[in-house]
Amino acid sequence: MSETNRQWILRARPQGHMRVEDFELKNVPAPTGAVGAGEIRIRNVAFLCAPTMRNWMDPPGNSFYPSVPLGEVMLAPAVGRVVASGDPEYPVGTRVYTISSWQDYASIPTGAGLPLHALPEGLSFLEGIGRYGLNPLTAYFGLLDVGQPRAGETLVVSGAAGSTGSTAAQIGKIKGLRVIGIAGGAAKCAWLRDECGLDATVDYKAEPVEERLAALCPDGIDVFYDNVGGEILQAAVNNMAPFGRIVLCGQIASYDEGRQPEGPRNMMRLIYGSIRMQGFLCGNYADRFDEAVTDLKAWTAAGRIAYREDLHHGFENLPAVFATLFSGANQGTLLVQVADEAEARE
Amino acid sequence: MSETNRQWILRARPQGHMRVEDFELKNVPAPTGAVGAGEIRIRNVAFLCAPTMRNWMDPPGNSFYPSVPLGEVMLAPAVGRVVASGDPEYPVGTRVYTISSWQDYASIPTGAGLPLHALPEGLSFLEGIGRYGLNPLTAYFGLLDVGQPRAGETLVVSGAAGSTGSTAAQIGKIKGLRVIGIAGGAAKCAWLRDECGLDATVDYKAEPVEERLAALCPDGIDVFYDNVGGEILQAAVNNMAPFGRIVLCGQIASYDEGRQPEGPRNMMRLIYGSIRMQGFLCGNYADRFDEAVTDLKAWTAAGRIAYREDLHHGFENLPAVFATLFSGANQGTLLVQVADEAEARE
Repeated sequence: MSETNRQWILRARPQGHMRVEDFELKNVPAPTGAVGAGEIRIRNVAFLCAPTMRNWMDPPGNSFYPSVPLGEVMLAPAVGRVVASGDPEYPVGTRVYTISSWQDYASIPTGAGLPLHALPEGLSFLEGIGRYGLNPLTAYFGLLDVGQPRAGETLVVSGAAGSTGSTAAQIGKIKGLRVIGIAGGAAKCAWLRDECGLDATVDYKAEPVEERLAALCPDGIDVFYDNVGGEILQAAVNNMAPFGRIVLCGQIASYDEGRQPEGPRNMMRLIYGSIRMQGFLCGNYADRFDEAVTDLKAWTAAGRIAYREDLHHGFENLPAVFATLFSGANQGTLLVQVADEAEARE
Repeated sequence: MSETNRQWILRARPQGHMRVEDFELKNVPAPTGAVGAGEIRIRNVAFLCAPTMRNWMDPPGNSFYPSVPLGEVMLAPAVGRVVASGDPEYPVGTRVYTISSWQDYASIPTGAGLPLHALPEGLSFLEGIGRYGLNPLTAYFGLLDVGQPRAGETLVVSGAAGSTGSTAAQIGKIKGLRVIGIAGGAAKCAWLRDECGLDATVDYKAEPVEERLAALCPDGIDVFYDNVGGEILQAAVNNMAPFGRIVLCGQIASYDEGRQPEGPRNMMRLIYGSIRMQGFLCGNYADRFDEAVTDLKAWTAAGRIAYREDLHHGFENLPAVFATLFSGANQGTLLVQVADEAEARE
């Protein structure tokens, strides 16, 4: 009897919030045999639930990110092990990070320009996708390379209690900035102040963000690291200091709204303030991942980066776990482990 | 009998298009005697009509640019001669460029951080505010420093037939880029192709801009120099190449609308495209003006910069001449000379 390959199929395009019913669990025979040249087959070990995946569930039309076709397996960042290889750079046994899909076994083209790289030595699968995975690397390069922070400046981070935001905020502290985090709810704000060492927080569910930023940043915001967009971005733009930098990392406020996230309504402020607003992808820095992991490991060893992981188990739970990203309930890097414990910690 | 100081007073905030009736011509006695320390008095010789002045007629509330109070003299970029000085750096006789006001004589604080600098040697007043004035300098630093163009890339300029846009476009050609200009009407487009040497043009009054840009830029736009904003910016954002740079110079499409110009509606494209959008002011580069004038003079001498000047005379015509900026009728750098010919050419 052949092994089974479990798959989560995108059955319907979500309207507003994504629902578990938009996906269908399917069992097909696991693929066997060799793969073609320029291709590898991986056994997925753990998946990252990243907010931007919500965009990938939308209809095609934006050439900049993928749209999963209806009836096909949902795409997702994952770590896994190569089980069949048609590319000598990734021999069988190689542990990789890539954009994979919600199934046990996935075929990945190696030359298509997709994110694909071997996990650094010394990191387990879970460390490779969690503590030192896509989100912290995104925070590292977004803040340091795009944001160009200088000691003594004021950094504001939105979505600050999230996986990427909390790392960006703490790197800001390590680099000598004054750091203010925007998050939803007293518990998240307290964690940011008490565990992450932020200088101040704004609870967007309870406080007027623009007024609070004005009070907390009398000389303006030098770097705004934005995971949220929408009205939060607007509030920050209205408080930017001259020559400020806005790091466009995500726009989670709009992912569920079924419309394109809008830019700020006051472009003249960008002009008269000499403000820079810049988007980026972590993958732009693939050749510098080792440098980032080295720094992040050193800061972690020194106890300077508080980290929360929200680790779930079980392939069958993937859509339900993913949905918690948008309810505000999730705290920390959201992972779903689908291989056994020994392998995941390997 | 004392000499007269003519003034154009802002009487009413323009609703939509600015009208001559929003201003009132007033005659007051010319100021005499010494000025205080940290102040100079200048005799204005010529005024530049710059689109952004329309913003200065709006009510206060945007801390990034000035709002002229009702009943006070309209602010305007100008060249003039120091006639009384309380600052040894600007002795009587010095020819200066500054943000002055629509009157014969204006007092300028020298330490308030306003743009204020002596005209480079060898430039007449009219050259200092026209061919080598604010608009060409803005184009120079905006394109070269903010846009970071590289030979072989594709540059698109909006408001390309304007004073700033046509200079930016031609510097792009000099630097080895493929340059496409967006302008309104067949005559302006023909001038850009035939006299300025642009590779192609888009007539926004007759052609669908987004589709035309897609056809003309199959590999995307590397640098977009934007003087217009609004739907034109949107069309360009939708056609940016990965790692493209958007130079935010002006948003003339919205100045008359009585509302804040909006940013692009698809922020995810900025993120997934790693696009940089950056505002700037020419004044950021005050310590490099000489370098720009040297380059612009050399390119002009080599016949590589076509230039059109729309020179008007007569203080009494200031508001009426300014209004032509927004009707689309104006072609070239719009100047109003208010001193006699010999002085202006000095």
